[in-house]
Amino acid sequence: MPLTSSLPDPATAAALAAFENVRDKSLELASQLSDADATAQSMEDASPAKWHLAHTSWFFEEFLLAPAFGEDVRYDPAFAYLFNSYYDAVGERHARPMRGLLTRPSLDEVRAYRAHVDQHMKRLIEQDVEAIHELLELGLSHEQQHQELLLTDILHLFAQNPLRPAFRSILDKTSDTQAAPLNWTKHGAAIAKIGHDGSGFAFDCETPSHDAIIRPFELANRAVTNGEWLKFMESGGYSLSRYWLSDGFAAAKANGWKAPHYWFEQNDTWYTMTLLGAQPVNLEAPVTHISFFEADAFATWADARLPTEQEWEFAARGEETMSGNDAGAKHYQPQVQSDEERTYLFGDVWEWTASAFRPYPGFKIAEGAVGEYNGKFMSGQMVLRGGSCATPEGHIRASYRNFFHPDKRWQFSGLRLARDVN
Amino acid sequence: MPLTSSLPDPATAAALAAFENVRDKSLELASQLSDADATAQSMEDASPAKWHLAHTSWFFEEFLLAPAFGEDVRYDPAFAYLFNSYYDAVGERHARPMRGLLTRPSLDEVRAYRAHVDQHMKRLIEQDVEAIHELLELGLSHEQQHQELLLTDILHLFAQNPLRPAFRSILDKTSDTQAAPLNWTKHGAAIAKIGHDGSGFAFDCETPSHDAIIRPFELANRAVTNGEWLKFMESGGYSLSRYWLSDGFAAAKANGWKAPHYWFEQNDTWYTMTLLGAQPVNLEAPVTHISFFEADAFATWADARLPTEQEWEFAARGEETMSGNDAGAKHYQPQVQSDEERTYLFGDVWEWTASAFRPYPGFKIAEGAVGEYNGKFMSGQMVLRGGSCATPEGHIRASYRNFFHPDKRWQFSGLRLARDVN
Amino acid sequence: MPLTSSLPDPATAAALAAFENVRDKSLELASQLSDADATAQSMEDASPAKWHLAHTSWFFEEFLLAPAFGEDVRYDPAFAYLFNSYYDAVGERHARPMRGLLTRPSLDEVRAYRAHVDQHMKRLIEQDVEAIHELLELGLSHEQQHQELLLTDILHLFAQNPLRPAFRSILDKTSDTQAAPLNWTKHGAAIAKIGHDGSGFAFDCETPSHDAIIRPFELANRAVTNGEWLKFMESGGYSLSRYWLSDGFAAAKANGWKAPHYWFEQNDTWYTMTLLGAQPVNLEAPVTHISFFEADAFATWADARLPTEQEWEFAARGEETMSGNDAGAKHYQPQVQSDEERTYLFGDVWEWTASAFRPYPGFKIAEGAVGEYNGKFMSGQMVLRGGSCATPEGHIRASYRNFFHPDKRWQFSGLRLARDVN
Amino acid sequence: MPLTSSLPDPATAAALAAFENVRDKSLELASQLSDADATAQSMEDASPAKWHLAHTSWFFEEFLLAPAFGEDVRYDPAFAYLFNSYYDAVGERHARPMRGLLTRPSLDEVRAYRAHVDQHMKRLIEQDVEAIHELLELGLSHEQQHQELLLTDILHLFAQNPLRPAFRSILDKTSDTQAAPLNWTKHGAAIAKIGHDGSGFAFDCETPSHDAIIRPFELANRAVTNGEWLKFMESGGYSLSRYWLSDGFAAAKANGWKAPHYWFEQNDTWYTMTLLGAQPVNLEAPVTHISFFEADAFATWADARLPTEQEWEFAARGEETMSGNDAGAKHYQPQVQSDEERTYLFGDVWEWTASAFRPYPGFKIAEGAVGEYNGKFMSGQMVLRGGSCATPEGHIRASYRNFFHPDKRWQFSGLRLARDVN
Repeated sequence: MPLTSSLPDPATAAALAAFENVRDKSLELASQLSDADATAQSMEDASPAKWHLAHTSWFFEEFLLAPAFGEDVRYDPAFAYLFNSYYDAVGERHARPMRGLLTRPSLDEVRAYRAHVDQHMKRLIEQDVEAIHELLELGLSHEQQHQELLLTDILHLFAQNPLRPAFRSILDKTSDTQAAPLNWTKHGAAIAKIGHDGSGFAFDCETPSHDAIIRPFELANRAVTNGEWLKFMESGGYSLSRYWLSDGFAAAKANGWKAPHYWFEQNDTWYTMTLLGAQPVNLEAPVTHISFFEADAFATWADARLPTEQEWEFAARGEETMSGNDAGAKHYQPQVQSDEERTYLFGDVWEWTASAFRPYPGFKIAEGAVGEYNGKFMSGQMVLRGGSCATPEGHIRASYRNFFHPDKRWQFSGLRLARDVN
Repeated sequence: MPLTSSLPDPATAAALAAFENVRDKSLELASQLSDADATAQSMEDASPAKWHLAHTSWFFEEFLLAPAFGEDVRYDPAFAYLFNSYYDAVGERHARPMRGLLTRPSLDEVRAYRAHVDQHMKRLIEQDVEAIHELLELGLSHEQQHQELLLTDILHLFAQNPLRPAFRSILDKTSDTQAAPLNWTKHGAAIAKIGHDGSGFAFDCETPSHDAIIRPFELANRAVTNGEWLKFMESGGYSLSRYWLSDGFAAAKANGWKAPHYWFEQNDTWYTMTLLGAQPVNLEAPVTHISFFEADAFATWADARLPTEQEWEFAARGEETMSGNDAGAKHYQPQVQSDEERTYLFGDVWEWTASAFRPYPGFKIAEGAVGEYNGKFMSGQMVLRGGSCATPEGHIRASYRNFFHPDKRWQFSGLRLARDVN
Repeated sequence: MPLTSSLPDPATAAALAAFENVRDKSLELASQLSDADATAQSMEDASPAKWHLAHTSWFFEEFLLAPAFGEDVRYDPAFAYLFNSYYDAVGERHARPMRGLLTRPSLDEVRAYRAHVDQHMKRLIEQDVEAIHELLELGLSHEQQHQELLLTDILHLFAQNPLRPAFRSILDKTSDTQAAPLNWTKHGAAIAKIGHDGSGFAFDCETPSHDAIIRPFELANRAVTNGEWLKFMESGGYSLSRYWLSDGFAAAKANGWKAPHYWFEQNDTWYTMTLLGAQPVNLEAPVTHISFFEADAFATWADARLPTEQEWEFAARGEETMSGNDAGAKHYQPQVQSDEERTYLFGDVWEWTASAFRPYPGFKIAEGAVGEYNGKFMSGQMVLRGGSCATPEGHIRASYRNFFHPDKRWQFSGLRLARDVN
Repeated sequence: MPLTSSLPDPATAAALAAFENVRDKSLELASQLSDADATAQSMEDASPAKWHLAHTSWFFEEFLLAPAFGEDVRYDPAFAYLFNSYYDAVGERHARPMRGLLTRPSLDEVRAYRAHVDQHMKRLIEQDVEAIHELLELGLSHEQQHQELLLTDILHLFAQNPLRPAFRSILDKTSDTQAAPLNWTKHGAAIAKIGHDGSGFAFDCETPSHDAIIRPFELANRAVTNGEWLKFMESGGYSLSRYWLSDGFAAAKANGWKAPHYWFEQNDTWYTMTLLGAQPVNLEAPVTHISFFEADAFATWADARLPTEQEWEFAARGEETMSGNDAGAKHYQPQVQSDEERTYLFGDVWEWTASAFRPYPGFKIAEGAVGEYNGKFMSGQMVLRGGSCATPEGHIRASYRNFFHPDKRWQFSGLRLARDVN
């Protein structure tokens, strides 16, 4: 009789399993990092791995544990100051560009902090999973976002090191697969439902669901490849202003862009820094680590354009599955998109769209600190769609909106071409 | 019989009249400026008055005279280098931030340059108005845009001078009019035609005309006033992050924004620098010289939002006339919007919208250097609608899209509130 | 009898003559400048000509007229704010980098300001020349310093203009004189008197007179020529770090120094911007517009060194006259130093010395605002000696210490070699 | 008989002992640092502890091992690129501001690198100590300089961490000793020998020995205390421009200086960050972490001045011993100078002098890469004398010249007053 009461009910069990799964994955990603690797910050846009591990724990502590169990539940009150990221409503926080100077707490102590949070979170889940379900889901999706950032930030850090260390050793044999020939899929005019339709979790910015006018367009069957990008480079693409947005050309000149981020030439061969260390550029694989400005210039050069986010989502709604080369596949780099039957909308590279990241019609900011989630970033950024080789398994969906400033290059960002049908 | 041949045909006469009208207006605006006033550049965003006068002439020389009459028609070949603005396709140009160091040519010589261009332009118009009609219209609209910039740039320059000189002396008696009470006009759901419909001149970015979904919304009957803005300030609006976009709050802190640009407090009274010199802030008049970030924060504070550019245009299409307080009225500052029967959509202040400046569906960049007109600025900027007290008479229309980066404040920019109807 | 009383006594007459002479010279220098020329500021280090004309007048108004006649004597109280330069004790002042935005008052009004000050200054001199003699001399020497800056600042401004306007037209025929062969003058060990010895005017930093140990050294008979500099350039001098001070090499790389300031190459010929417009570089004339860092690197390359300021002054004390190619000669550029019998210590180019600008032993800062004259600049700058082609006639002396930061290049600065005698 | 040959001769034994002593001390200093502590770089002026440990080893490898044993002796050829500091002649090097991103090699591997170098260095010493004696001494003095920097750089790093970790725990009980009353020691006129006199090791910049004129002066018996500094602060010293050099006042305003570096106020008490963690400011102890600009302003405020480096050395030559509170004492912070009989010229704080760091008369730069040692830094820096609480035991001497830019504050820098005797 009391026996059964000690068994978690299915909802609780599922929540516990989901929680452990996501939390373990973070630790696993950091498992081959040294204390120093996990501490360094290679630029203001990036954060130390240790910070990602701690900040995602702070999120649970701040929004779930402290409200439920009181302030005493905190592992160390100073951590609220150190590991808050941008939630102004929650109080002062440590300056972002100084994160790399936090040599203490050590990586080991951050692991202890995580264990402390995990223990109390499990207690809380077991206590009343219903009451916290929404914030729990948000916290786990939030942690998954930081898992992807942990990967892109470590890549950026290791790329600054002349020794070019590898995050993971190469598992794959070098593939000699070829990219599928470029084909165009026609889509007719429509009034499409855009945005999250209500089943399952979604971030605030994916709502509300609303109608959008779709004009006839064509979408490429795969992402642009490194080989195609090389042609753009060889035709002078980086130095001909006519292909570029004005701010883009200025950025290209100011930053000396001549090739995708991480590319370098040695003995007439192009190499690129990857999570597997420096590798020869695979001309058949999707190009990545390009800015929106470069993607837009390439599309103009190719006599095409980027799809709008509505067009992209309209095409992706037809997808039966969301499978692709995500972080679950553990390649940690884009793979050749060789199959003519597939669309490759998910995985490999985030695809820059033509759309500025702005609120959907009727968008409302949620009450409280959690309301700071996405709404306040809705200026100056462009939408990317589809997830990448660094996106956690199960994290992506057709309505998912990622966003970065148009000059950012350290994410696994690429592009897919679209064009009008006349 | 030969007599009639010396009379210009009606189209030629109209073109000549339009040309003279616009060209004279530029000189008239500069008529009270000294050589030094017309030379100085107060920031990189602004240009010297002399440069505006010369650049608009270079436009005609470059795109009309030289193609028609050959290179010898140029007044001075060096001017092509000095007075090109951003047309990369046309060649190298003088660095923008250095414009204020061009003490030579003098203002008088720039006037001579204008006379030279005018003389040959008239010859060209008389020769074959049909052939050049499109570029002529573009050149004149282009010059009108620079007329407005000449005003905003001179205001910025004079505002840096502790003596606070006036561009024009005050003609108006101080008005004791009161702003109309704030009312909301309801607009129902619709599929609206957006963009230039083909009659008369329009800039490239206003095309193509296309359908847009309008959801039910309400629009305020007038712009936000200085008095309303003061309430926002007094309630701590500038220091409470919850009203602000993240980039906006960062800009406000970095630049020390505490009030609209040009406002200053003296003996507990707010003053503002205007084209008529320093003036007490008129609490009933529309607020101006605010950034998009401030406009957006104000709207959030007011539990409303900015209209999209589609909503704005949808509302403005209902307007019978486009009359308002533009530069033709020679007030050179926003006037109190007191009449409850009017919408004040045109004139007084440019109204920031919620829309990023991006291409309309199907937008194509024109061939040649003229194709650089607006397309390449379609990133990072926000759309403003409706014209201002500095917009030349006859220059504005319902489909007109102005655009500036969201942190810019030296234009006559204000806002009008909108809100959803549920 | 009363007749004689209306005749100024000789001291008064001499003071009036000196005053008029210096004041007229300033106006004469500005006589060919337009209002715009006189208003623009081409960099933070430079000031507009109009500002030089006004500031030197403000000095008399502030330190002589207002104390003697009261505040009502001021032409315009706002000018004290606009035209104070760095005298903190006197009150707030207009920000230095904004000087070029003061399009009002106009050049004509500044001339009226000068006339106003002149009139009252003459009244004050006639009233009691004895009481003001010291400050009067300081004010005139101060104005002469600004006359030299007016020339170097106008040169810098005109050099930014692609039209390369000339301050004065060329009077001289191009000379085919050759520089004297390089000879070395030996100086033996000594205890030398250094600093101003008390006769006539001197700036505070030239005092007190004191003993210095001179070790045996040799000094070149003339300044380094453009031809010799070209050899340094051609031997890779600008890119070989071993010749350079560390901060100097960093400055050279950061600023892209490849040749003296104002040099530019066209069709394989070196030209340089001068007060007479662009001119071919005369290889026989002294090199000028080089920084201390470049001078020091050249000396190291030449297996020599720069003289200390004590060595320079020790050598110059032997000079019977201080004549040389100064601004009184109206060449406005360095002339070939061809005469083997002369030392050319005065005129042509300021000679960088090896000495940091620090106080002489026993130096005391004067009381009051005038005490801010030189003392507070005694860090981070290097001493130059001997005057240049832009130094007013009669302004220079053997004990004169000029000083600039080691990376400054817009003055007429050159170098003379020295070396140890073993 | 052959037995004795296996015993090192006394010179070899002494060299081995000296080598081991210095090398062990570096490891000892780093013994409580984590991998992350040793990797982070808190500003461009500072270097990671790991870098100090590796760079000092590279020095031996580059200038002693590779010449003697060939390139194969190197531990890892890439380290020459990573751990060269500023020796341009030796080749390209890793950019200084990026040192903190070298998470690999790890601290453990750097220790292995050190062991490798130590092993080969011992072999080289045993082989022929005579041949390498000079470079060996230079290498050890060089390493001692980096030991001091390791301490000041770690302090700077830990001061950025809100947790304020301690480098060492407090050994001392808080002392209630009082500073000795301020007394002045008179020194008469003299011709003094300045510079290294030839016995024992000295850096290049301490030579050649030469005569200098000393004028009568008085020197304070101890350094300025925190309590005296607080009086300067309370009298408005930081905001009154009349005490300051112009560049100094600009630096104070630009950087918001209101107190010595590392001071912070909490509950009306002043604290300071130290190598022992945050501590209340001891008003009796010498003030430290002040710039030259502040030291100079304080001296002016106190109606005194800084001593010249010649005066300081002249006074220090009278010292029988060079003992003081150096790093050998393991206090790691300045101690109260309480004994009226002592001069405290050595230890506690480096004393800013009035002298710019320039070459002594007759100074010659040594041949080869080692010649880059000090000569190329002889511009823009000021001389400090006497060593500090972080200076290794046995490293200091009367002729020792330390030097930093006048705005630097992270060293243990303080001041001692001097004044003229009339």
